[in-house]
Amino acid sequence: MRGTNEPNIIGNELKYISKSIKNNEIAVGRNLFLFEKKLKKNLKAKHLVLCSSGTAALQVALRAIGLKRNDEVIVPSFTFIATINSVIYNNCQPIFMDCDEYCNINVDKVLEFLKNNTFKKGNYTFNKKTKKRIYAIVLVHVWGGLVNIDKLKEICKLRNIKIVEDATESVGAKYIKGYSKNKYAGTVGDMGCLSFNGNKIITSGGGGAIITSSKKLAIKAKYLINQATDDGFSYIHKEVGFNYRMSNIHASIGLAQLEKINFFIKRKKTIHEFYKKKFLKCKNVEILSFPRYSKNNFWQTTLLVKNKNHIKKIQLIKSNLEKKGFLIRKAWLPCHLQNPYKNFETYKITNSETISSKLICLPCGTSLKSKDLNVISKVILNCIDE
Amino acid sequence: MRGTNEPNIIGNELKYISKSIKNNEIAVGRNLFLFEKKLKKNLKAKHLVLCSSGTAALQVALRAIGLKRNDEVIVPSFTFIATINSVIYNNCQPIFMDCDEYCNINVDKVLEFLKNNTFKKGNYTFNKKTKKRIYAIVLVHVWGGLVNIDKLKEICKLRNIKIVEDATESVGAKYIKGYSKNKYAGTVGDMGCLSFNGNKIITSGGGGAIITSSKKLAIKAKYLINQATDDGFSYIHKEVGFNYRMSNIHASIGLAQLEKINFFIKRKKTIHEFYKKKFLKCKNVEILSFPRYSKNNFWQTTLLVKNKNHIKKIQLIKSNLEKKGFLIRKAWLPCHLQNPYKNFETYKITNSETISSKLICLPCGTSLKSKDLNVISKVILNCIDE
Repeated sequence: MRGTNEPNIIGNELKYISKSIKNNEIAVGRNLFLFEKKLKKNLKAKHLVLCSSGTAALQVALRAIGLKRNDEVIVPSFTFIATINSVIYNNCQPIFMDCDEYCNINVDKVLEFLKNNTFKKGNYTFNKKTKKRIYAIVLVHVWGGLVNIDKLKEICKLRNIKIVEDATESVGAKYIKGYSKNKYAGTVGDMGCLSFNGNKIITSGGGGAIITSSKKLAIKAKYLINQATDDGFSYIHKEVGFNYRMSNIHASIGLAQLEKINFFIKRKKTIHEFYKKKFLKCKNVEILSFPRYSKNNFWQTTLLVKNKNHIKKIQLIKSNLEKKGFLIRKAWLPCHLQNPYKNFETYKITNSETISSKLICLPCGTSLKSKDLNVISKVILNCIDE
Repeated sequence: MRGTNEPNIIGNELKYISKSIKNNEIAVGRNLFLFEKKLKKNLKAKHLVLCSSGTAALQVALRAIGLKRNDEVIVPSFTFIATINSVIYNNCQPIFMDCDEYCNINVDKVLEFLKNNTFKKGNYTFNKKTKKRIYAIVLVHVWGGLVNIDKLKEICKLRNIKIVEDATESVGAKYIKGYSKNKYAGTVGDMGCLSFNGNKIITSGGGGAIITSSKKLAIKAKYLINQATDDGFSYIHKEVGFNYRMSNIHASIGLAQLEKINFFIKRKKTIHEFYKKKFLKCKNVEILSFPRYSKNNFWQTTLLVKNKNHIKKIQLIKSNLEKKGFLIRKAWLPCHLQNPYKNFETYKITNSETISSKLICLPCGTSLKSKDLNVISKVILNCIDE
């Protein structure tokens, strides 16, 4: 069975691993340094810290940036649950926001919420309702497109709300318009988080990275992922840290994958355009568009079922595609509707709930052939037009 | 520079990785299943769940077993800080205990504490001082030897205090006497935790495992390390989980290392005996013994500086050994003296504080040659006898 986003190992992965093994560099070693260095260069990032997963990156970024227990964090409801878990790991509370047409956080609603439902006191912004400090906002660049960030960045600066970018799905995407022009996902906010999970645009087998332009924050993040070790000889730990290092073997894979990132993005775009064309004439479905202000990485192409009556066909599509050997996934159930997060604050969420049930994540691994894409499209069209 | 415990890659590591890469099994794949299966068989464990680190194993084991926010957990003070961090990650409080002659938790003092400082009410044990529930005890099998567990196990059962074994350093060690005879580290308590960090007796590059004889707890642990995913198609998550999976690439390394575990343990024992002999006649130092009730894995051999006046020579030993290319480490600073844990309850801690400053962790990677061990011993003897 082919998943929606399988790894595509076509470069120097084995070569770099072999060398690491020959040098006895398994957990630690030079490829960690190399992957970090090349990734930094590739994304024009000032500082970058590799870690064990995108989730770990989010947890540590929020902690490093100064989030304190019981602070509140503005988050999109429409995201993978790990985004919200990272807030909870820090013993803080999420405030859920709606999504826009690209499934990114609805910036206008966030600005409206900040204007009407919060106040500034001293150097910080507080929630009128709970009186708690709102210290950060997590912006998730959903499926390879980017959040429309300029206005939000301006207001967050005035309000001293730290921006943490969840760029786990959008590694390599960049802005092509506005103040953030030519900046890559993860390098625009105060901190950025990447993922190299097996299903991502490039994988390290499992891994992530924390990006920041602040040397101090980078040092802090590196300290935290290394069990907060102040002195390795005497085992002194001044804080509660984590075991979130990336292994040198995983870094070897990441290093090889990074060399192919432009090819992967190009291939993802081709797959997106292929599907777009295939479903262009079908009035019941359409391929969800990516933003125009960014050069997206097109990581996940999704199909929107326009007519409510056709939603029930998603199960049929699923089983018919499985017969052909392909897996699909639904879009996320919005996080404010997930069991652990039902009792947290939400702000005017409408689109997030409606769109969630209407979307299908299509198979779009970069190793899929045109033949595969044709089969997939045909199965779906047959189900929908039935 | 050679560390105290470097990986020793002498088996099928590259072969198994190559096969995984050929099969496009990077993050997930068959070697995860195989490593899990063979490890389970090797340790006669009923259920085993691989995860991303020993720390992750501890955090998840404590959560799976039913620890609730603000419970108290009895822990040894003399351990690596990760043991205690795993309690804090669960928003619970540690109660620190002293160590015995083998640097394991002092069982007599724990029993005394339970007798005098706690009471049972309903089905649970409570701390007389704080009135909080004491739900679990973490037993760390320090440096490859085992905790003297029988009496403690009996009392913990009566008191309904769950035993979580931190067997991160003692993979492959087993009891040879008492009620737990022939049982391996990690399989005696309610849950056990292993580590395959780069410095451990076998490594997977980074990784750990959770062991339990309860199918229900194993299912729970597996659920928690997989982001608590109830339904992968629709992204339903009923709990706050974690991204703590092991990658198939790491499992490939672990699988190959496991095939050599008997060789590694044998080599570790030889190294231990080598050092023991070398320092036998020196009246100022001695090699710390391992327990006689267990077949230990001798992971870390330590040198005890007997005379208080010689403690200051540890720095000299360190720098003289570094000149020869070898690193040593001091023993852990006891956790109740570490900055994040200064304000938690302790019970009659004496030995833990005294012994900590007197111990040196000697280089004992299994790839060290007799020649290396001779050099190391000679440097130390020269410093000590000066």
